[in-house]
Amino acid sequence: MTIDTHHINFAVGPVPIEEEIAAVGGEVIPYFRTAEFSALMKENEALILDAMQAPEGARAVFLTGSGTAAMEAAVLGLYGENDRLLIVNGGSFGKRFCEIASLHKIPYEEISLPFGQPLTKEDLLPYENGGFTAFLVNMGETSSGVLYDMALISDFCRRNSLSLTVDAISTFLADPVEMARWSADAVLTGSQKALATAPGVSVIALSPRAVLRIEATEPKSYYLDLRSALKNGERGQTPYTPAVGILIQINKRLNQLKEMGFDAPVKRTKALADYFRRGIANYPFTVATDAMQNGVTPLKMRGELSAHRLFEILMAEYGIVICPNGGPTRDTHFRVGHIGYHTEEEYDKLFRAFDDLMARGIL
Amino acid sequence: MTIDTHHINFAVGPVPIEEEIAAVGGEVIPYFRTAEFSALMKENEALILDAMQAPEGARAVFLTGSGTAAMEAAVLGLYGENDRLLIVNGGSFGKRFCEIASLHKIPYEEISLPFGQPLTKEDLLPYENGGFTAFLVNMGETSSGVLYDMALISDFCRRNSLSLTVDAISTFLADPVEMARWSADAVLTGSQKALATAPGVSVIALSPRAVLRIEATEPKSYYLDLRSALKNGERGQTPYTPAVGILIQINKRLNQLKEMGFDAPVKRTKALADYFRRGIANYPFTVATDAMQNGVTPLKMRGELSAHRLFEILMAEYGIVICPNGGPTRDTHFRVGHIGYHTEEEYDKLFRAFDDLMARGIL
Repeated sequence: MTIDTHHINFAVGPVPIEEEIAAVGGEVIPYFRTAEFSALMKENEALILDAMQAPEGARAVFLTGSGTAAMEAAVLGLYGENDRLLIVNGGSFGKRFCEIASLHKIPYEEISLPFGQPLTKEDLLPYENGGFTAFLVNMGETSSGVLYDMALISDFCRRNSLSLTVDAISTFLADPVEMARWSADAVLTGSQKALATAPGVSVIALSPRAVLRIEATEPKSYYLDLRSALKNGERGQTPYTPAVGILIQINKRLNQLKEMGFDAPVKRTKALADYFRRGIANYPFTVATDAMQNGVTPLKMRGELSAHRLFEILMAEYGIVICPNGGPTRDTHFRVGHIGYHTEEEYDKLFRAFDDLMARGIL
Repeated sequence: MTIDTHHINFAVGPVPIEEEIAAVGGEVIPYFRTAEFSALMKENEALILDAMQAPEGARAVFLTGSGTAAMEAAVLGLYGENDRLLIVNGGSFGKRFCEIASLHKIPYEEISLPFGQPLTKEDLLPYENGGFTAFLVNMGETSSGVLYDMALISDFCRRNSLSLTVDAISTFLADPVEMARWSADAVLTGSQKALATAPGVSVIALSPRAVLRIEATEPKSYYLDLRSALKNGERGQTPYTPAVGILIQINKRLNQLKEMGFDAPVKRTKALADYFRRGIANYPFTVATDAMQNGVTPLKMRGELSAHRLFEILMAEYGIVICPNGGPTRDTHFRVGHIGYHTEEEYDKLFRAFDDLMARGIL
């Protein structure tokens, strides 16, 4: 089968990859139990920690798996039945943290937020001195496009002595990630988001305290065992055969970002988001939250047309992929991504498609 | 960092990828929640089942993860505390099945075989009517290069009504895999072995009985949940973002193999193995087992030189990667792989390197 890859892809991962970085994916994949590959992995670890503004002594591990693999690995590695987690659940990724805790019988309570709502001081109030041990949040709840207030959250965690795990899967390199300033124990990301490499690898950065905790705990999963990942990582290796090609691609990309400065992709994403958001005033949809991530604009349809139908029409007739919502907002909401290798010209094409759909009486 | 990829790579994964297939890795990675990608995944499933000679009604799922992810997912999905597993442990991959069972508190007994020894009728005798419920074996124990007698094993399983899980990670497409004939419940493989695509994806084929068992069981892992993988697979999707690029590469490769016939890579691997094995008579090492896989030749050093040193010298001075052993056989044994896109000329270069090392008095 041949897949049409000529679409303009505004999904929130996998995202368009810059040509030079994409080309790495087509190169020869070397044997990896070598000093050379170990050095590359050590460099990946150092660069990721640098980009996350991690504290002195932090470590990072690279898992072959999706962001969900990293979420489960972090929960299993850091928390157990003696913990009591507080989880922000404002969409499908918050719900996922809850489901992972539930499956592994780790006690938790959820702060349930209406779809698209930010987290406020008032939301946290009932949980002060609540006997929790840890706080889990998707910094960006990608399903709704909401960005949570990390300063508010990290203050709450410090005040209540909570371990903090931050899913920054779709926000890292699109919004500022400041692991040390937040005193976060774990920060997660994935290869196919603003890092803009191929999907297949996820990353967990761990504070020195988290590393100690993991080293002292019996693993609860074999494949997702962070203790073994950390131990192998000391020599720049992984316990099992990793997605070698993607890790090499990540290395090239991280070096490219280091050269530009790790704030460059944040600025670029914000500029593209601003460009898009300025352009949509006259279309029949409304921005669906007041607290947006830079990486994605969530939109709510004002008219009759189903958002999912809009996704189908744009793909089939205009060669443009927007990011469809799932579940209860499938027909009312859609999203437009700003992470990955996008240009203003691509958004112009999307605007022209919207114009045309309005002229045709469809939108 | 730049990694030298000009080595001739005789490792047993990642293996050399044919140019046309490798190039797919450099192409644009499309959005995947589409009917087009679903159709590709359904085709992948059908082709894998065909290549594994799976029974009518079997299913296959694709995990983003290494072969070990597939091993753990299969054990967790199919077996539990009410089972009693019999595991062949003749090397590091057999040991891995034991460790997975042990970690998840699934009762098991191991048939411990000396390194490099095949499994015989006599080895199985003490376990007849032993109250087991399942049998787990690495068809090829890649750490020693041994190929187990699958006819013997499947007869034993049938006679004793055991569920059979076969790790064919490094044997699929290199030795014949006959899932239906073996009445196997699960057969595992990985993308970076004889399938000869990039590492990052593993595959589990499941018998209709295994599918029913999984559907009736509460998942014990979130990421490695086969129930969710099967359910999403019904519409050609995965629960979480998969390694899209590798799955497209797998599709191209499976279609290429279908064209040639799925026995073509088996024959090719055997021919290359025979060519290599005919050529090594005069070198100071001995074939380390009587029951070899087609995919790899395990060798034991006869002289003083450390096998690991030989690996280092061949890589540094001749640009050739052989497959080093780990653990207790690190200095005594090495392996030479025959899976992936190899040619007789490459083995000739290895022979010339051996000749030269002998002339230099090193080997």
